[in-house]
Amino acid sequence: MIVILKNRPDPDQLEGLISWLNAQGVAVHPTVGASQTILGLVGDTSRIDMNLIAALDIVEAVKRVAEPYKNANRKFHPDDTVIRVGNAVIGGGNLTIIAGPCAVESEEQLMATAEAVKAAGADLLRGSAFKPGSSPYAFQGLGIEGIRLLLAAKEQYGLPVVSEIYDASQLPLFCDIDVLMVGAKNMQNYALLRALGRTEKPVILKRGFSNTREELLMSAEYILAGGNPNVILCERGIRTFDPSVPGTLDVAAVPLLKSLTHLPVIVDPSSAGGKYTYVPALARAGAAAGADGVMIEVHSDPAHAKCDGLQSLTPEKFAKTAASLRRIRQLISEEE
Amino acid sequence: MIVILKNRPDPDQLEGLISWLNAQGVAVHPTVGASQTILGLVGDTSRIDMNLIAALDIVEAVKRVAEPYKNANRKFHPDDTVIRVGNAVIGGGNLTIIAGPCAVESEEQLMATAEAVKAAGADLLRGSAFKPGSSPYAFQGLGIEGIRLLLAAKEQYGLPVVSEIYDASQLPLFCDIDVLMVGAKNMQNYALLRALGRTEKPVILKRGFSNTREELLMSAEYILAGGNPNVILCERGIRTFDPSVPGTLDVAAVPLLKSLTHLPVIVDPSSAGGKYTYVPALARAGAAAGADGVMIEVHSDPAHAKCDGLQSLTPEKFAKTAASLRRIRQLISEEE
Amino acid sequence: MIVILKNRPDPDQLEGLISWLNAQGVAVHPTVGASQTILGLVGDTSRIDMNLIAALDIVEAVKRVAEPYKNANRKFHPDDTVIRVGNAVIGGGNLTIIAGPCAVESEEQLMATAEAVKAAGADLLRGSAFKPGSSPYAFQGLGIEGIRLLLAAKEQYGLPVVSEIYDASQLPLFCDIDVLMVGAKNMQNYALLRALGRTEKPVILKRGFSNTREELLMSAEYILAGGNPNVILCERGIRTFDPSVPGTLDVAAVPLLKSLTHLPVIVDPSSAGGKYTYVPALARAGAAAGADGVMIEVHSDPAHAKCDGLQSLTPEKFAKTAASLRRIRQLISEEE
Amino acid sequence: MIVILKNRPDPDQLEGLISWLNAQGVAVHPTVGASQTILGLVGDTSRIDMNLIAALDIVEAVKRVAEPYKNANRKFHPDDTVIRVGNAVIGGGNLTIIAGPCAVESEEQLMATAEAVKAAGADLLRGSAFKPGSSPYAFQGLGIEGIRLLLAAKEQYGLPVVSEIYDASQLPLFCDIDVLMVGAKNMQNYALLRALGRTEKPVILKRGFSNTREELLMSAEYILAGGNPNVILCERGIRTFDPSVPGTLDVAAVPLLKSLTHLPVIVDPSSAGGKYTYVPALARAGAAAGADGVMIEVHSDPAHAKCDGLQSLTPEKFAKTAASLRRIRQLISEEE
Repeated sequence: MIVILKNRPDPDQLEGLISWLNAQGVAVHPTVGASQTILGLVGDTSRIDMNLIAALDIVEAVKRVAEPYKNANRKFHPDDTVIRVGNAVIGGGNLTIIAGPCAVESEEQLMATAEAVKAAGADLLRGSAFKPGSSPYAFQGLGIEGIRLLLAAKEQYGLPVVSEIYDASQLPLFCDIDVLMVGAKNMQNYALLRALGRTEKPVILKRGFSNTREELLMSAEYILAGGNPNVILCERGIRTFDPSVPGTLDVAAVPLLKSLTHLPVIVDPSSAGGKYTYVPALARAGAAAGADGVMIEVHSDPAHAKCDGLQSLTPEKFAKTAASLRRIRQLISEEE
Repeated sequence: MIVILKNRPDPDQLEGLISWLNAQGVAVHPTVGASQTILGLVGDTSRIDMNLIAALDIVEAVKRVAEPYKNANRKFHPDDTVIRVGNAVIGGGNLTIIAGPCAVESEEQLMATAEAVKAAGADLLRGSAFKPGSSPYAFQGLGIEGIRLLLAAKEQYGLPVVSEIYDASQLPLFCDIDVLMVGAKNMQNYALLRALGRTEKPVILKRGFSNTREELLMSAEYILAGGNPNVILCERGIRTFDPSVPGTLDVAAVPLLKSLTHLPVIVDPSSAGGKYTYVPALARAGAAAGADGVMIEVHSDPAHAKCDGLQSLTPEKFAKTAASLRRIRQLISEEE
Repeated sequence: MIVILKNRPDPDQLEGLISWLNAQGVAVHPTVGASQTILGLVGDTSRIDMNLIAALDIVEAVKRVAEPYKNANRKFHPDDTVIRVGNAVIGGGNLTIIAGPCAVESEEQLMATAEAVKAAGADLLRGSAFKPGSSPYAFQGLGIEGIRLLLAAKEQYGLPVVSEIYDASQLPLFCDIDVLMVGAKNMQNYALLRALGRTEKPVILKRGFSNTREELLMSAEYILAGGNPNVILCERGIRTFDPSVPGTLDVAAVPLLKSLTHLPVIVDPSSAGGKYTYVPALARAGAAAGADGVMIEVHSDPAHAKCDGLQSLTPEKFAKTAASLRRIRQLISEEE
Repeated sequence: MIVILKNRPDPDQLEGLISWLNAQGVAVHPTVGASQTILGLVGDTSRIDMNLIAALDIVEAVKRVAEPYKNANRKFHPDDTVIRVGNAVIGGGNLTIIAGPCAVESEEQLMATAEAVKAAGADLLRGSAFKPGSSPYAFQGLGIEGIRLLLAAKEQYGLPVVSEIYDASQLPLFCDIDVLMVGAKNMQNYALLRALGRTEKPVILKRGFSNTREELLMSAEYILAGGNPNVILCERGIRTFDPSVPGTLDVAAVPLLKSLTHLPVIVDPSSAGGKYTYVPALARAGAAAGADGVMIEVHSDPAHAKCDGLQSLTPEKFAKTAASLRRIRQLISEEE
């Protein structure tokens, strides 16, 4: 951490600041320039609140040099985290394909979709039972009945299942669900993150649509610091000035996050693309950028879906896309 | 709602769409152009999911004409909502001033600040007991002890109190708190919004830092539709491309929201400004733009605050600012 | 400037970097931590390209401490720049009101509008003769005939005139125009900025709709460094995730810019508001935040304007707004 | 185009609007609902200014249905535009690789880089002679000497050359340059675009860092409408809320633009990535998303580059990346 002082700081206040920093176990190295003095702080600054220092009269600015996350930091954990769920292996050079409907709507819809994605080589089945819709008048999911259907599909097709949780109070209902998913709107729902930190369930943590990569890592840190090491990060498109798509897939987040953290990083081209015609290109872009997995919305009958039909692939289009992703991954693996 | 069809739509599919719309109680008026056919939908379209229609093969685009919120809509409720809390009157031409520390830190800090803001003419006292900090290692508030201190300050200084809630499970602890505040990170925490809809407590709903005004109104709709009419909207700065401030105060949101909704609209110049030096100018801008209230962070000793010291005003600066806001409001009232 | 080195940097490369920096006249103070070494650079770093250093193998990151602009910097020029144009005084505690149509359309339109804004107390008359419209099929202004009409209005009503220039080759046509305006789309048109730097004309430099405040100051620096000290900065709304307004007026830019620079800062509520109903509230917000001036689009007959009719005030509404702005300014002056 | 009227519009004004629209050659079909009347306009609305209509008292909103660009529109020109430059073929299923330094710095640097990119299979050589740097104190390019060196490299290595132009007055200097490039800052420099429209030179038009895809197409329309059909669109990263990269590569722009227009679409992973370590992943993502080309900054000695060294690949890394891009393209071609 670096503290930039105002010109001619009051010596008593400066001494006070240095003593306080020393008391926090931090050594202080000043660099005195003609028009500016800079303090370099050496030691563990991860628990020092920058804003406390910035609020002092003698301080012009404070800049953080070290990352504020420890558990998620690749510097301290150089090896990739690898998460096993049933037969699926997430991270460490694999390309995991997660597919299924946005929401569980009926037994027929879920079973037909599950059968199709299994046949096309998906590794996990997704489907939301609880939908945090932005309108109180929209479809909110089948709830507990949706969970029951997912577990039936899991038994019938042998695919581990992924489903969205949006409140800590729902946790008991998810005890047989294999992977919990935190949606973009809940990336900073800390009551939920803390509750997930107390489980051992793998968690797909979606990046909030306007959160920085560092904020995503800080939310992961909440789960990791609670004792649960099984976090999978998911880039699903960010909000930009362009209203013509629901999210701009930040494909650079894949290599950037993977340089900062050891956690697996997957992409969700369906949420980002917003329309089925763009999903295959975005899925391929994610795989080509080195993602550890791709999550794709697939529906047995998109035109009659209760949610996200526009961005869902038919089983046929999904099968073609999945095969293409496998080939791209193979090609990249051979180059490495 | 308007449906723009692709060129030469399949007649059977078109008939199917029109029948389905009629079955939803919506009349359909086609406009047939040389290169494009447009369907105008007439009736209550607020429960029709645009994306279902957009997913059809024959449809190029769907545009909403009517607002998707009913309870919050000024068209159906032309008169301003006015909310009374103790002696404070929020909405309907008043300028309500809410002030106090970011977080309750100690009895001494809270009482000193409460006394000062009361003396300077604040209408309500704010202070968070539960802080949803973006780092798991940061100060998270005093919790239930913070609530106890707030209630003591309320009794001693006679000011109604405002405090932040971020999980539905915290609700029983807030039964004596006058106004509940939903922070920007929880604007789309629907489990929380639904729980608040089942109370009668006034709720300050802060706009998420990357949410549109329409999304803010849809979140208000969750609370209103649940039966609680006492919602106060709060503009607190939005996230833009500029990293040099924590939020860009969207001062235009004041007149825009007030044209769309009957709910009171207040501004929070402290969260937006990020630094005490900018807070008075932003507070004045909000008052001059017609806000129903201003919420300002004040701390008896900002340099030693446990959170947000940098953006907190001293009691002296707050007193000057509050007086200026009253004068601006007076001036504008005389012009109307 | 601060250079953060990677762990265990190669000693030869480090020595090479330090020698090179010394050769640039910059002293280097290292802070050696357990896991990180930081170099503090002391001296004039304004001409050192951060990216050159960041490209080195041994460097993790580079952070700038000093501002990269000199001429525009308040640190080196603490007194407000005050610009006189005819009877108008811009900067130094005044509130300058600039008003007139978006574009000059006809003699009748311009004269009627000029007469009205003069009567309402405007200090300068605006009107574009050259319009850089985003469609090649849109109205592009009257060109040289528009300039002629502006000069006629100037003579008849005695108001100095402001008009937009968007290419250096247009400069000879503007020799009798009092104030040149650079639009948001041309804030980084360096050929134009350099040409303006070689004149002595006052220049209103509008902030690009997605440019940071620092980039605005760097564009001002182009003009100032060329020898023209008469630059007026203009905040006109920035592009954010919200498509419902053409620009989000960044009212905080007023106090922020005024703390960073000595140049006058004005606001343009018309471009930002996009609709006449929001313009008075935004104009008042700008004045209350301390702007040195406000530029408002006024049209004698907005419903038949050839451009920006929706955001233009009628002469009556402008007169009311101008009076309100004067009162707010008076009130704030008395408080200072 | 659709016009949404306010409730109970004044009948005379409504009749006036309809007559005026008819006079523009546009038929009007009203849809009268209980609470809202909508006018559907049928005919050529591309030259009707939405804002003129929106400014009327009786109008609540206007929505465009048809695209405002004609020449660039795939609807009217379904076949891909294919542009030939020397031996390079841009568009129509090829992957064109453009490589070279950010700026021409010296004969030695340019020749070494040209030789390397030629050997690695690049189709065109890039290099800026005129640099529109955001600081007046930064390196601005070698100017005319840079052009001379580029032409020498073209002769020696047989690669067509691409160079940046930022002012119409520079055009005579570019008569032997094969492809002109308009940088992101000049995407809306209409004087320049009009001048380019009067030539027949292929133009790479970079998307402004905060411009929508529609604005990019409108800028292309300027060149096309002037008579020059040889426009290549370039996605180079957009500005978002995340300051940690210079641009967020909007990889979805590739399939979206290609659905809207017949013009070739290339990506620039160097400007977007900002750091050489991310460039190969972004280049692969662009190719996998279906781009018609990739433009990559390569420097014979990045650590001593005068600009953009951090984002430049060494010749070795470029050769590996180029080979990978060819394989991805091959794989996708086989799938189609």
